[in-house]
Amino acid sequence: MLFTNLEFDQEQRNRMRALSAPDEVYFGDPEQTPEADREAFLKAEIAFGWCPPEWLAEAGALRWMQFDSVGIGEYAHLDWDRLSRRLVRTNLRGFFAEPVAETVLAGILALYRGIDRLVDLKPRQAWMKLTLRPQLKTLANAAVVLVGHGALGQRLRVLLLPFGCRVTAYDQFAEGADLTQLEELDAVLPDADIVCTALPDTPATRGLFGKKRFDLMQAGAIFVNVGRGSLVDESVLAEYLLSGRLGGAVLDVTDQEPLPCEHPLWQCPHTILTQHTAEGSFDELDRKITFFAENLRRYRQGLSLENVINWTRGF
Amino acid sequence: MLFTNLEFDQEQRNRMRALSAPDEVYFGDPEQTPEADREAFLKAEIAFGWCPPEWLAEAGALRWMQFDSVGIGEYAHLDWDRLSRRLVRTNLRGFFAEPVAETVLAGILALYRGIDRLVDLKPRQAWMKLTLRPQLKTLANAAVVLVGHGALGQRLRVLLLPFGCRVTAYDQFAEGADLTQLEELDAVLPDADIVCTALPDTPATRGLFGKKRFDLMQAGAIFVNVGRGSLVDESVLAEYLLSGRLGGAVLDVTDQEPLPCEHPLWQCPHTILTQHTAEGSFDELDRKITFFAENLRRYRQGLSLENVINWTRGF
Repeated sequence: MLFTNLEFDQEQRNRMRALSAPDEVYFGDPEQTPEADREAFLKAEIAFGWCPPEWLAEAGALRWMQFDSVGIGEYAHLDWDRLSRRLVRTNLRGFFAEPVAETVLAGILALYRGIDRLVDLKPRQAWMKLTLRPQLKTLANAAVVLVGHGALGQRLRVLLLPFGCRVTAYDQFAEGADLTQLEELDAVLPDADIVCTALPDTPATRGLFGKKRFDLMQAGAIFVNVGRGSLVDESVLAEYLLSGRLGGAVLDVTDQEPLPCEHPLWQCPHTILTQHTAEGSFDELDRKITFFAENLRRYRQGLSLENVINWTRGF
Repeated sequence: MLFTNLEFDQEQRNRMRALSAPDEVYFGDPEQTPEADREAFLKAEIAFGWCPPEWLAEAGALRWMQFDSVGIGEYAHLDWDRLSRRLVRTNLRGFFAEPVAETVLAGILALYRGIDRLVDLKPRQAWMKLTLRPQLKTLANAAVVLVGHGALGQRLRVLLLPFGCRVTAYDQFAEGADLTQLEELDAVLPDADIVCTALPDTPATRGLFGKKRFDLMQAGAIFVNVGRGSLVDESVLAEYLLSGRLGGAVLDVTDQEPLPCEHPLWQCPHTILTQHTAEGSFDELDRKITFFAENLRRYRQGLSLENVINWTRGF
């Protein structure tokens, strides 16, 4: 049996049934985890979506779990050594590179070209042409440091190419990174106009951007985070944005989501909160089914699956 | 004597004086046109900036006018046949290609990635992740029609390259255009996801986008104008944006600027009004002086100047 709990419409459910046939599909609740879903999950051979971590630990029949995300931080504490002997786990690494890279560029260009301020002016019908023009910058030739050079970082590098940006990427694991040591990263931070973090949540990445690294950045630089909220000390970030020490931020992820109403990041100037939408697109679910279908074909033919998670590394 | 009326600070005035020496520089009012400025203008050999059209007609000593804009529509009715025998006129064609192309891309990406809606949500601390995600699009592989393929269109084409956009450019005069006839343009409009107009104001371009061409565009397409407001029938544009017939707009120019408070474009959804800031950047005036300095060197050495205006064509 195949378990899935994504928010499919009728057409997508039919597509899932056709893919799975002759095996049955169980459609779980996309928001909650009722007992009936847990019971179905424990009987499933294949699961596509997400689940409470404790379900995974007890799912005796499960042979393959296709997560519908890239990050899997919430499952990190499970005893994977024991589980991994029988359970293949795959994620959506690379799947979101295009939409996320486009949101990062949209956010940076919005700050450089004043789109955030212009959108604010519209409901007030306030014409500020002459005030705004001298505040604007161009991205051409900017120095960009990518902290994380996975699929997203590599795609962003390509989109920045025609701007003539000087791009330097730090990554301990990924292909094509220019720097692999944190000391090397710290050496280039002072020259960066833009720093973009896109690392997963692991013990090694938690708190990577705290006071020490924000202090290394030049005054007025822009900070982007599309990795995980845990990478950043948000109280320092908010303080530096409020004081103008940092020139702006584009944040897709925060430590708490939804971001609480009283959180200072809501009040920070030149700060675009993209509310974990960077991965989104109208055809996201259809594309996920297409990705799953290819892995299902491989699973049934006994081939190795795409995007098997390296659990020791944490992503 | 050299006349200029740009809004220079002290350092920039000193730079202008050094460039002009041994000739004197007269610094006019950057906002108004007092009688003293007119008298100075009529005695000047070189002018750098702008002036009321009637000044140009009487400026007997003037040999070279360097406009600080690309468009020169407000001078079109002058008797240039008589004036052109003694007066060289140059503009800033190409000078603004980078900032304008970046604002166009910033505006399009903002609409595709929901930045306009996210900026609106921030003062209300409203978390709309799940509502927004399925509304978003990616620019990858979009069909883009450029109406005008001057320096801006050519630069935009380069910035769009890594997105894999299918770009088609219409232009009667410019290099590298794919289409030169209006019938050819009309044939590609129905397939465009994005139409970007960047033509000057001339008798031939006025009203180019009225009901006929907007009706040719597909439902949900995005319209961009960084040329002149006169290209567009704004009542049809506003109607189609309000009804959702068009998916959105990025407008740097409008028929009346500042846009009057009661104008319907202020109320249109998915419409980013960039308030004629697209050419702006913090170093705009310094870059203008650098451009002028090179033309001044050429003028003094008797060489042909950069960006001489073709007055018959109108730009």
